[in-house]
Amino acid sequence: MSKEIASREQDYSQWYNDLIIKGGLADYSAVRGCMVIKPYGYALWENMRDQLDRMFKETGHQNAYFPLLVPKSLFEAEEKNAEGFAKECAVVTHYRLKTDPDNKGKLMVDPEAKLEEELVIRPTSEAIIWNTYKGWIQSYRDLPILINQWANVVRWEMRTRLFLRTAEFLWQEGHTAHATKTEAVDETVQMLNIYAEFAETYMAMPVIKGVKTANERFAGAEDTYCIEALMQDGKALQAGTSHFLGQNFAKAFDVKFSDKENKLDYVWATSWGVSTRLIGALVMAHSDDEGLILPPKLAPIQVVIVPIYKGDEQKQQIDEKVKALMAQLKAAGVSVKYDDNDNNRPGWKFAEYEMKGVPVRVAIGARDLEKNVVELARRDTREKMTVSMDGLDKTIIALLDEIQTAIYAKANSFRAERITEANNWEEFVKLLDGKGGFISAHWDGTPATEDKIKELTKATIRCIPLNNKQEAGKCILTGNASTQRVLFARAY
Amino acid sequence: MSKEIASREQDYSQWYNDLIIKGGLADYSAVRGCMVIKPYGYALWENMRDQLDRMFKETGHQNAYFPLLVPKSLFEAEEKNAEGFAKECAVVTHYRLKTDPDNKGKLMVDPEAKLEEELVIRPTSEAIIWNTYKGWIQSYRDLPILINQWANVVRWEMRTRLFLRTAEFLWQEGHTAHATKTEAVDETVQMLNIYAEFAETYMAMPVIKGVKTANERFAGAEDTYCIEALMQDGKALQAGTSHFLGQNFAKAFDVKFSDKENKLDYVWATSWGVSTRLIGALVMAHSDDEGLILPPKLAPIQVVIVPIYKGDEQKQQIDEKVKALMAQLKAAGVSVKYDDNDNNRPGWKFAEYEMKGVPVRVAIGARDLEKNVVELARRDTREKMTVSMDGLDKTIIALLDEIQTAIYAKANSFRAERITEANNWEEFVKLLDGKGGFISAHWDGTPATEDKIKELTKATIRCIPLNNKQEAGKCILTGNASTQRVLFARAY
Repeated sequence: MSKEIASREQDYSQWYNDLIIKGGLADYSAVRGCMVIKPYGYALWENMRDQLDRMFKETGHQNAYFPLLVPKSLFEAEEKNAEGFAKECAVVTHYRLKTDPDNKGKLMVDPEAKLEEELVIRPTSEAIIWNTYKGWIQSYRDLPILINQWANVVRWEMRTRLFLRTAEFLWQEGHTAHATKTEAVDETVQMLNIYAEFAETYMAMPVIKGVKTANERFAGAEDTYCIEALMQDGKALQAGTSHFLGQNFAKAFDVKFSDKENKLDYVWATSWGVSTRLIGALVMAHSDDEGLILPPKLAPIQVVIVPIYKGDEQKQQIDEKVKALMAQLKAAGVSVKYDDNDNNRPGWKFAEYEMKGVPVRVAIGARDLEKNVVELARRDTREKMTVSMDGLDKTIIALLDEIQTAIYAKANSFRAERITEANNWEEFVKLLDGKGGFISAHWDGTPATEDKIKELTKATIRCIPLNNKQEAGKCILTGNASTQRVLFARAY
Repeated sequence: MSKEIASREQDYSQWYNDLIIKGGLADYSAVRGCMVIKPYGYALWENMRDQLDRMFKETGHQNAYFPLLVPKSLFEAEEKNAEGFAKECAVVTHYRLKTDPDNKGKLMVDPEAKLEEELVIRPTSEAIIWNTYKGWIQSYRDLPILINQWANVVRWEMRTRLFLRTAEFLWQEGHTAHATKTEAVDETVQMLNIYAEFAETYMAMPVIKGVKTANERFAGAEDTYCIEALMQDGKALQAGTSHFLGQNFAKAFDVKFSDKENKLDYVWATSWGVSTRLIGALVMAHSDDEGLILPPKLAPIQVVIVPIYKGDEQKQQIDEKVKALMAQLKAAGVSVKYDDNDNNRPGWKFAEYEMKGVPVRVAIGARDLEKNVVELARRDTREKMTVSMDGLDKTIIALLDEIQTAIYAKANSFRAERITEANNWEEFVKLLDGKGGFISAHWDGTPATEDKIKELTKATIRCIPLNNKQEAGKCILTGNASTQRVLFARAY
């Protein structure tokens, strides 16, 4: 192996960090809690972004861009939202540095360049956007507004982890405005479905769609819909949220419209987002102790070709075959890399691309050429197979599809085994400390009970699944009456 | 006309603002000097970004992402760079807000959450990137590093204008690291050529490639290469810069590599960028008193189709024809919009899409259908023509190409008339106050003379053109000896 990584069993958390760093996805930075997204990680993000962007545009959304900085007076207008994010806000107070008279070559904040009003770096953009929408909306003819923004945001988190929780992260945030409540709720659900489809079809990561309890709701929302995924250590991860904001922001920013009957009403709102956190989820959902396992539909490099040869003549023969194969694969839209760098030996390359999670590896040797075959290795199962060079492009494309399906199936059966019912406190705690995963249990519906359970076990209610079965039961903690089971888990 | 805009002659500056606002490209925001990029403007930026991104990737560059915030101690490490940007830095000093005890519902900066070290919002990323590269570079095998970043930056400008100069703007910044000076200089020139090709081929905007004088150089660069464009009011606009940074940042951040002979040396650097400012340039290069004129290769909507009908039956007949045409155009990669919104009359739509600069308008009436013709209108010349429906997709595609060529030719001949030689001070001032444009004149090569000319006339040296002809002459201000003419202009 070219690089050593911790095993999952040994140290799950270290394993994750090793994958991110040694897989070349990201690096630590000189700024507390902020990371550098390296080219390989950014290429993965571009693939995710481009696919989501297509799905947003197909459903009528347009991109726009709003300011990074939010004046404090706007930020505090929607009280619950402000309260929810106030503790994590990076605040700009000055607009100039000057030479430090006491320290040659050093700079200091110029006290004369203090802002009259402080500016907050957006932790989320509802405030600045709804303040803008106010100027854009007069009549029902101006609605709906279906806008998305790709941007960076800053939330001053105390405990950070690469991709999963960083002070600055990249995301998209949709912000829509509607004439009716029904339309806004429909939009909220539509976007949840898009996130779920993206997670399952592209990330090969099964998710549960549900609604958050009041405790876990987005600050300023009436309802937060979410998709929840399960990681290999049995912990849940919230992978995307879609918020029905009611008329809260319209009221805070006084955004009214006149309807067809010329009656004034507040506008209805939604917002929805996914972030670079998805990369963390993707890594933890599929990878193994040899490195990353990336789904073919998102992998920056889908196929790597490694030549095995002695001398220039063999190399030239292989080059010729590879050139033709690459042209075929590229024409089919497959991302392929030919690694003929002769500074590294084939074995080193094999380990390197396993670490990087490249779905299919093609090894072509001089002897293979004579037999008209190559060796294919699939990353997910690490199976190797000798296949004919005839129709090789089609064999590879079929294999990419097979891998996409297989890793979804594997993650899905892993999860299926880890949604378990608990019918009393003892069972609940035992499951949590044992196999983990989602625990389906009765809860009396009160925030106080939810808080108490979290305090005792660190488990939270991940969601109330959509179309949840209604059944009478008793709360696992209080024994009070309950009308439905909800999903508990420890979570990222 | 649906919306009134100032004419260029009347008030050039107001004309520009009207185009941006009424053309739907951007809006003012609640944050001093920051703008909202509206969907139509952002779609234009996406087209520019995607094309540039392709050109960067074709030349071996990869995207990555570095932190928004730069610790002051890193920022000040390269002294000239720090000095150049210190006066425009937004500074984060605190990381938390709290409830204001004296103002119910209001927030205040939490004095207990003061950062130990202030963070600067990146005005440019050399500091944070070279601090990172230090960890990535040990040997010549780690070079070159060819990285680009698409990001937002903040420069606290006192006088701002939509797109042309805003406190926050979007841009790309390439940052490359090389083993030799030659390689770094070649990279700098390569990127300048890419910018020039983009400006001319896609923006249809002729540019002059040149080198900046010491006065106008990027803070921290050894040489700044630039492309300079000419606006319709005779003022120049710097449209892109590519910097050869020498070993300045490598020295500031102690980034050394061992070469093939195992000898340690500092790494050579370049950086290069273009920004949303290009949108301002694009608008001013081509538009007229009726609104925007956008080049077909970048226009978010290349073709708009407007139906002219009475009653449902006529509408249905038109719809059918349009559906077929749109399918053909889309298959050819043409971006087409069918505006059959019946809230607006055709005349209103015509004016609206002229304002928005859509290159080709197709009007289809019921009577046209009988004659198997449609009316095409091209935005640049406002010419109308009646053409056959047979092969209409091909007619339209050819017309788009023709418009792209025509607006470049127009801008090019406008500029050709406005590069004028001045041989003494009187001629120089007369030209500046008269037809404007680039003035080619002798300069004695000293920063002091350049400063003095700027002070007297507001004109600056835009560049020393690449491959500039060497000829003996006398400086227009001092009469001192000069070896070449340089290009002066008043500029944005």
